[in-house]
Amino acid sequence: MSTTPDGDTSYPRTPRTTPTRYKDRATWEREAIHAILDATYLCHLGFVADGAPVVLPTIHARVGDRLYVHGSTGSRPLRGARGEQGLPVCVTVTLVDALVLTKSAFNHSVNFRSVVAHGTAHQVTDPEELTVALDALVDQVVPGRSAEVRPANAKELAATAVIRLDLDEVSAKSRADLADDDPEDLALPHWAGVVPVTTGYGTPVPDASTAVPLPANLAALTAARDA
Amino acid sequence: MSTTPDGDTSYPRTPRTTPTRYKDRATWEREAIHAILDATYLCHLGFVADGAPVVLPTIHARVGDRLYVHGSTGSRPLRGARGEQGLPVCVTVTLVDALVLTKSAFNHSVNFRSVVAHGTAHQVTDPEELTVALDALVDQVVPGRSAEVRPANAKELAATAVIRLDLDEVSAKSRADLADDDPEDLALPHWAGVVPVTTGYGTPVPDASTAVPLPANLAALTAARDA
Repeated sequence: MSTTPDGDTSYPRTPRTTPTRYKDRATWEREAIHAILDATYLCHLGFVADGAPVVLPTIHARVGDRLYVHGSTGSRPLRGARGEQGLPVCVTVTLVDALVLTKSAFNHSVNFRSVVAHGTAHQVTDPEELTVALDALVDQVVPGRSAEVRPANAKELAATAVIRLDLDEVSAKSRADLADDDPEDLALPHWAGVVPVTTGYGTPVPDASTAVPLPANLAALTAARDA
Repeated sequence: MSTTPDGDTSYPRTPRTTPTRYKDRATWEREAIHAILDATYLCHLGFVADGAPVVLPTIHARVGDRLYVHGSTGSRPLRGARGEQGLPVCVTVTLVDALVLTKSAFNHSVNFRSVVAHGTAHQVTDPEELTVALDALVDQVVPGRSAEVRPANAKELAATAVIRLDLDEVSAKSRADLADDDPEDLALPHWAGVVPVTTGYGTPVPDASTAVPLPANLAALTAARDA
């Protein structure tokens, strides 16, 4: 059913992780896939409810080959992930890097990086693993943050819903290229090119209860914006 | 099965557009939902393939109560949408506005706006509607762009895959609030507050073939970044 052409450095290819179009944009390389997953915290979790697809935004973090997904956006997926059978899911992470504008409407494109992971998710119930997962989720949003706040207590851990998807059937796609106009369109008097898309952070606004200076990791987020 | 408590200004509520948690974050108001859909071009399209969920990133645009979704990310969903029965889909649009950092790990949150639309998608085959949809998709990425480029010809239109989802069973969720620590955590010596998340554009890089100055709509994107 699957092959591992590149051994441990790649995830196995399966029919549903093999694209039918733009095959040169796909990769199964572990390192490339991890880099995309690690570059953001926002993911979209897909599952099937009463036979119909549901896609909810949530937060993810990767620990090795395990992907942890926060269940805060609704309890429906978590109910399904509680049993031994688990819940079939698709977790998708997308980063837009640039708008690619061409002289024809048809050839417009986007430079992007995305990961699509398929598999069966299980709710994390072991308190030790749950602690690891929660720390990873907090640190995914702000690096180092979990060590700077009050950790979850037993009651909070019990109220936290995290599901685990073991990374196995997963692929990445990306485009990082120039505008690709048809030769006969190149002389048209239109603007073509690439417009980078950037994500940054505004000035942090401390809560009224905050009596300490801005930590270095948060200052670094803002600095990255101004770079 | 559904009620329209607010008449034409809201979409009907159904069991699956009624959240089980954080009910005060949900809305069915047409105007609020349209505003979120119109605020970005990136969406995540969910469908069921061989009984399992699939979530793919793609581009959307709204025309009235119709949501058009580009099928470029793969031909699988389009095959399903071609028949008269159409394809059950879930289209989700998410905007992250801020990180919400609290003194406890447990209370961390994100300020966001999202829309989840359920329904049956159909492939757009009428050339006139396809032209409208393609123009809307291009203009969703860069306002006014479709009027500044060579329109799609008949061959390109035939090669373009767009699906339509009539907005009917759709809801929005949002959080726009301060850090929400438990009272007993407020005195902890940690930084709590809100860190705005911003999306912007870098300096446009013209293609070698470009012989015209930067159009005003693209200049406006960059200006928004510097504001």
